[in-house]
Amino acid sequence: MKHLVLVAHGSRREASNEEVRMIAARLKSLAGTRYADVTAAFLELVEPSIPGAIQCCVERGAREVVVLPYFLSQGRHVATDIPEQVQPKQAEHPQVQITIAPYLGSAEEGIAAILLQLAQ
Amino acid sequence: MKHLVLVAHGSRREASNEEVRMIAARLKSLAGTRYADVTAAFLELVEPSIPGAIQCCVERGAREVVVLPYFLSQGRHVATDIPEQVQPKQAEHPQVQITIAPYLGSAEEGIAAILLQLAQ
Repeated sequence: MKHLVLVAHGSRREASNEEVRMIAARLKSLAGTRYADVTAAFLELVEPSIPGAIQCCVERGAREVVVLPYFLSQGRHVATDIPEQVQPKQAEHPQVQITIAPYLGSAEEGIAAILLQLAQ
Repeated sequence: MKHLVLVAHGSRREASNEEVRMIAARLKSLAGTRYADVTAAFLELVEPSIPGAIQCCVERGAREVVVLPYFLSQGRHVATDIPEQVQPKQAEHPQVQITIAPYLGSAEEGIAAILLQLAQ
Protein backbone atom coordinates (compact mmCIF):
# COMPACT_ATOMS: atom_id res chain seq x y z
CA MET A 1 0.00 0.00 0.00
CA LYS A 2 1.90 2.98 -1.37
CA HIS A 3 0.40 6.48 -1.31
CA LEU A 4 1.56 9.57 -3.19
CA VAL A 5 1.09 13.06 -1.74
CA LEU A 6 1.63 15.95 -4.16
CA VAL A 7 2.65 19.01 -2.13
CA ALA A 8 2.18 22.57 -3.37
CA HIS A 9 2.55 25.86 -1.53
CA GLY A 10 -1.13 26.71 -1.21
CA SER A 11 -2.66 29.89 -2.59
CA ARG A 12 -5.29 32.44 -1.55
CA ARG A 13 -6.54 32.02 -5.11
CA GLU A 14 -8.69 28.91 -4.93
CA ALA A 15 -8.35 28.19 -8.66
CA SER A 16 -4.60 27.63 -8.14
CA ASN A 17 -5.25 25.08 -5.40
CA GLU A 18 -7.77 23.41 -7.67
CA GLU A 19 -5.11 23.14 -10.40
CA VAL A 20 -2.97 21.17 -7.93
CA ARG A 21 -5.85 18.84 -7.06
CA MET A 22 -6.45 18.30 -10.79
CA ILE A 23 -2.79 17.34 -11.28
CA ALA A 24 -3.07 14.89 -8.36
CA ALA A 25 -6.18 13.37 -9.95
CA ARG A 26 -4.34 13.10 -13.27
CA LEU A 27 -1.38 11.38 -11.58
CA LYS A 28 -3.73 8.91 -9.99
CA SER A 29 -5.30 7.98 -13.30
CA LEU A 30 -1.90 7.86 -15.08
CA ALA A 31 -0.24 5.72 -12.40
CA GLY A 32 -2.77 2.92 -12.61
CA THR A 33 -2.32 0.52 -9.70
CA ARG A 34 1.10 1.88 -8.66
CA TYR A 35 -0.42 3.94 -5.82
CA ALA A 36 -3.38 3.11 -3.63
CA ASP A 37 -4.17 6.81 -3.81
CA VAL A 38 -2.74 10.14 -4.96
CA THR A 39 -3.80 13.25 -3.06
CA ALA A 40 -2.85 16.92 -2.88
CA ALA A 41 -1.56 18.64 0.27
CA PHE A 42 -0.44 22.19 0.98
CA LEU A 43 2.46 23.71 2.87
CA GLU A 44 0.52 26.81 3.92
CA LEU A 45 -2.91 28.45 3.82
CA VAL A 46 -4.89 25.49 2.52
CA GLU A 47 -6.05 22.15 3.92
CA PRO A 48 -5.07 19.37 3.99
CA SER A 49 -1.67 20.19 5.52
CA ILE A 50 1.28 17.89 4.86
CA PRO A 51 1.10 16.21 8.30
CA GLY A 52 -2.67 15.92 7.92
CA ALA A 53 -2.37 14.26 4.51
CA ILE A 54 0.30 11.84 5.76
CA GLN A 55 -1.84 10.97 8.79
CA CYS A 56 -4.75 10.26 6.51
CA CYS A 57 -2.60 7.91 4.38
CA VAL A 58 -1.46 6.04 7.50
CA GLU A 59 -5.01 5.68 8.77
CA ARG A 60 -6.01 4.26 5.42
CA GLY A 61 -3.32 1.59 5.71
CA ALA A 62 -0.34 3.04 3.83
CA ARG A 63 2.94 1.17 4.33
CA GLU A 64 4.78 3.71 2.22
CA VAL A 65 4.11 7.41 1.58
CA VAL A 66 5.93 9.41 -1.11
CA VAL A 67 5.81 13.20 -0.67
CA LEU A 68 6.32 14.90 -4.02
CA PRO A 69 7.08 18.68 -4.00
CA TYR A 70 5.27 20.56 -6.77
CA PHE A 71 7.78 23.41 -6.73
CA LEU A 72 9.98 24.83 -9.48
CA SER A 73 12.89 26.00 -7.38
CA GLN A 74 14.77 24.52 -4.49
CA GLY A 75 14.13 27.35 -2.09
CA ARG A 76 13.50 27.30 1.64
CA HIS A 77 10.14 25.56 1.16
CA VAL A 78 11.69 22.54 -0.53
CA ALA A 79 14.97 22.50 1.39
CA THR A 80 13.63 23.12 4.89
CA ASP A 81 9.89 23.62 5.36
CA ILE A 82 8.65 20.40 3.76
CA PRO A 83 11.20 18.16 5.56
CA GLU A 84 10.32 19.89 8.85
CA GLN A 85 6.67 18.98 8.39
CA VAL A 86 7.43 15.41 7.30
CA GLN A 87 9.93 14.41 10.01
CA PRO A 88 7.56 14.43 13.01
CA LYS A 89 5.11 12.21 11.14
CA GLN A 90 7.93 9.77 10.33
CA ALA A 91 8.89 9.72 14.01
CA GLU A 92 5.27 9.14 14.97
CA HIS A 93 4.85 6.25 12.50
CA PRO A 94 8.20 4.42 12.29
CA GLN A 95 6.50 1.41 10.67
CA VAL A 96 5.60 3.52 7.61
CA GLN A 97 8.31 4.46 5.12
CA ILE A 98 7.91 8.16 4.30
CA THR A 99 10.16 9.57 1.59
CA ILE A 100 10.42 12.98 -0.06
CA ALA A 101 10.89 12.75 -3.82
CA PRO A 102 12.94 15.33 -5.80
CA TYR A 103 11.07 18.58 -6.47
CA LEU A 104 9.54 19.20 -9.90
CA GLY A 105 12.10 21.82 -10.99
CA SER A 106 14.95 19.35 -10.52
CA ALA A 107 13.79 17.51 -13.67
CA GLU A 108 15.53 20.09 -15.82
CA GLU A 109 15.68 18.06 -19.00
CA GLY A 110 12.01 17.16 -19.06
CA ILE A 111 10.94 20.69 -18.17
CA ALA A 112 13.15 22.22 -20.84
CA ALA A 113 11.55 19.93 -23.43
CA ILE A 114 8.05 21.02 -22.32
CA LEU A 115 9.03 24.70 -22.41
CA LEU A 116 10.32 24.44 -25.97
CA GLN A 117 7.05 22.84 -27.04
CA LEU A 118 5.02 25.58 -25.35
CA ALA A 119 7.08 28.28 -27.05
CA GLN A 120 6.14 27.03 -30.52
CA MET B 1 15.47 36.61 -35.97
CA LYS B 2 13.33 35.08 -33.24
CA HIS B 3 14.14 35.53 -29.57
CA LEU B 4 12.80 33.61 -26.59
CA VAL B 5 12.42 35.24 -23.16
CA LEU B 6 11.80 32.88 -20.25
CA VAL B 7 9.96 34.82 -17.53
CA ALA B 8 10.02 33.81 -13.86
CA HIS B 9 8.77 35.66 -10.79
CA GLY B 10 12.16 36.69 -9.40
CA SER B 11 13.34 35.70 -5.93
CA ARG B 12 15.29 37.27 -3.05
CA ARG B 13 17.16 33.96 -3.04
CA GLU B 14 19.73 34.39 -5.78
CA ALA B 15 20.14 30.62 -6.28
CA SER B 16 16.51 30.47 -7.46
CA ASN B 17 17.14 33.18 -10.06
CA GLU B 18 20.23 31.32 -11.15
CA GLU B 19 18.15 28.15 -11.65
CA VAL B 20 15.99 30.14 -14.11
CA ARG B 21 19.03 31.41 -16.01
CA MET B 22 20.33 27.84 -16.20
CA ILE B 23 17.03 26.68 -17.70
CA ALA B 24 17.23 29.50 -20.25
CA ALA B 25 20.77 28.40 -21.16
CA ARG B 26 19.58 24.82 -21.50
CA LEU B 27 16.71 25.91 -23.76
CA LYS B 28 19.15 27.79 -25.94
CA SER B 29 21.38 24.77 -26.38
CA LEU B 30 18.39 22.43 -26.93
CA ALA B 31 16.71 24.69 -29.48
CA GLY B 32 19.69 24.80 -31.84
CA THR B 33 19.16 27.53 -34.43
CA ARG B 34 15.46 28.01 -33.71
CA TYR B 35 16.12 31.14 -31.64
CA ALA B 36 18.78 33.78 -32.10
CA ASP B 37 18.95 33.87 -28.31
CA VAL B 38 17.16 32.61 -25.21
CA THR B 39 17.36 34.78 -22.09
CA ALA B 40 15.79 34.93 -18.65
CA ALA B 41 13.73 37.88 -17.38
CA PHE B 42 11.91 38.52 -14.11
CA LEU B 43 8.51 39.93 -13.21
CA GLU B 44 9.70 41.44 -9.91
CA LEU B 45 12.76 41.99 -7.74
CA VAL B 46 15.42 40.93 -10.25
CA GLU B 47 16.89 42.37 -13.44
CA PRO B 48 16.39 42.17 -16.33
CA SER B 49 12.72 43.13 -16.18
CA ILE B 50 10.35 41.87 -18.88
CA PRO B 51 10.26 45.23 -20.73
CA GLY B 52 14.04 45.50 -20.38
CA ALA B 53 14.60 42.04 -21.84
CA ILE B 54 12.19 42.70 -24.74
CA GLN B 55 13.90 46.02 -25.45
CA CYS B 56 17.25 44.24 -25.53
CA CYS B 57 15.90 41.69 -28.05
CA VAL B 58 14.60 44.50 -30.28
CA GLU B 59 17.91 46.36 -30.15
CA ARG B 60 19.68 43.17 -31.18
CA GLY B 61 17.47 42.90 -34.27
CA ALA B 62 14.66 40.57 -33.17
CA ARG B 63 11.69 40.45 -35.59
CA GLU B 64 9.81 38.15 -33.24
CA VAL B 65 9.92 37.77 -29.45
CA VAL B 66 8.25 34.90 -27.59
CA VAL B 67 7.64 35.49 -23.87
CA LEU B 68 7.40 32.16 -22.04
CA PRO B 69 6.02 32.20 -18.46
CA TYR B 70 7.91 29.86 -16.12
CA PHE B 71 4.97 29.56 -13.72
CA LEU B 72 3.03 26.54 -12.51
CA SER B 73 -0.34 28.18 -11.96
CA GLN B 74 -2.37 30.65 -13.93
CA GLY B 75 -2.63 33.22 -11.20
CA ARG B 76 -2.61 37.00 -11.39
CA HIS B 77 1.02 37.03 -12.52
CA VAL B 78 0.30 34.97 -15.63
CA ALA B 79 -3.20 36.30 -16.33
CA THR B 80 -2.55 40.01 -15.74
CA ASP B 81 0.92 41.12 -14.67
CA ILE B 82 2.94 39.65 -17.53
CA PRO B 83 0.55 40.89 -20.27
CA GLU B 84 0.58 44.35 -18.65
CA GLN B 85 4.34 44.48 -18.91
CA VAL B 86 4.41 43.15 -22.48
CA GLN B 87 1.70 45.33 -24.04
CA PRO B 88 3.51 48.71 -23.85
CA LYS B 89 6.57 47.19 -25.52
CA GLN B 90 4.38 45.82 -28.32
CA ALA B 91 2.85 49.28 -28.77
CA GLU B 92 6.32 50.83 -28.83
CA HIS B 93 7.63 48.36 -31.43
CA PRO B 94 4.73 47.51 -33.77
CA GLN B 95 7.14 46.08 -36.35
CA VAL B 96 8.16 43.30 -33.91
CA GLN B 97 5.78 40.42 -33.26
CA ILE B 98 5.65 39.83 -29.51
CA THR B 99 3.66 36.82 -28.29
CA ILE B 100 3.09 35.31 -24.87
CA ALA B 101 3.29 31.50 -24.91
CA PRO B 102 1.18 29.29 -22.59
CA TYR B 103 2.56 29.07 -19.04
CA LEU B 104 4.49 25.99 -17.96
CA GLY B 105 1.73 24.59 -15.71
CA SER B 106 -0.68 24.46 -18.64
CA ALA B 107 1.27 21.49 -20.05
CA GLU B 108 -0.53 19.18 -17.65
CA GLU B 109 0.18 15.95 -19.45
CA GLY B 110 3.94 16.49 -19.73
CA ILE B 111 4.21 17.68 -16.15
CA ALA B 112 2.23 14.73 -14.83
CA ALA B 113 4.61 12.37 -16.66
CA ILE B 114 7.63 14.10 -15.08
CA LEU B 115 6.05 13.98 -11.62
CA LEU B 116 5.45 10.25 -11.85
CA GLN B 117 9.08 9.70 -12.82
CA LEU B 118 10.30 11.82 -9.90
CA ALA B 119 8.10 9.89 -7.47
CA GLN B 120 9.81 6.61 -8.32
